[in-house]
Amino acid sequence: MEKFDGATLLGLVAAVLTTSSFVPQLVRTWRLRETKDISLWMFLLIGAGIFLWMVYGFLIRDLPVIAANMVSFVLVSLILYLKIKYR
Amino acid sequence: MEKFDGATLLGLVAAVLTTSSFVPQLVRTWRLRETKDISLWMFLLIGAGIFLWMVYGFLIRDLPVIAANMVSFVLVSLILYLKIKYR
Repeated sequence: MEKFDGATLLGLVAAVLTTSSFVPQLVRTWRLRETKDISLWMFLLIGAGIFLWMVYGFLIRDLPVIAANMVSFVLVSLILYLKIKYR
Repeated sequence: MEKFDGATLLGLVAAVLTTSSFVPQLVRTWRLRETKDISLWMFLLIGAGIFLWMVYGFLIRDLPVIAANMVSFVLVSLILYLKIKYR
């Protein structure tokens, strides 16, 4: 793991933003119980991609990439579950 | 830029998956012209985050991070445009 520098800090802010972006979608889907306007393919592809990003983060030992994608994967999985449940 | 190794290849596959994930959502929103079930906050946050990821990619000179986020930013901006247009 590299030293905690400015670039890592920026990466962590980016990580917090992209990861937290799935929270309002999860809350909205949970409340509305409607998913017609959401693309199943979007969340299948982004879920698979996020999983690979996480593996990539471990390979390049990059903290922001690992942390962001680990949490995002859980959130996207929950949105996918609701999308399939309320399709 | 580091050499083109296995980790970079995996990163590029991850990049293609997460970036291409926005295409089916864009197509769906374009066709349906309905965005009720989509969270505006999700796409605002992910757009801001993707922009910072792109800057981060330049700082750490990481090809997959730069490429993925550059294309994703355009796609997310288009989805945001449609979300605001058909809110």
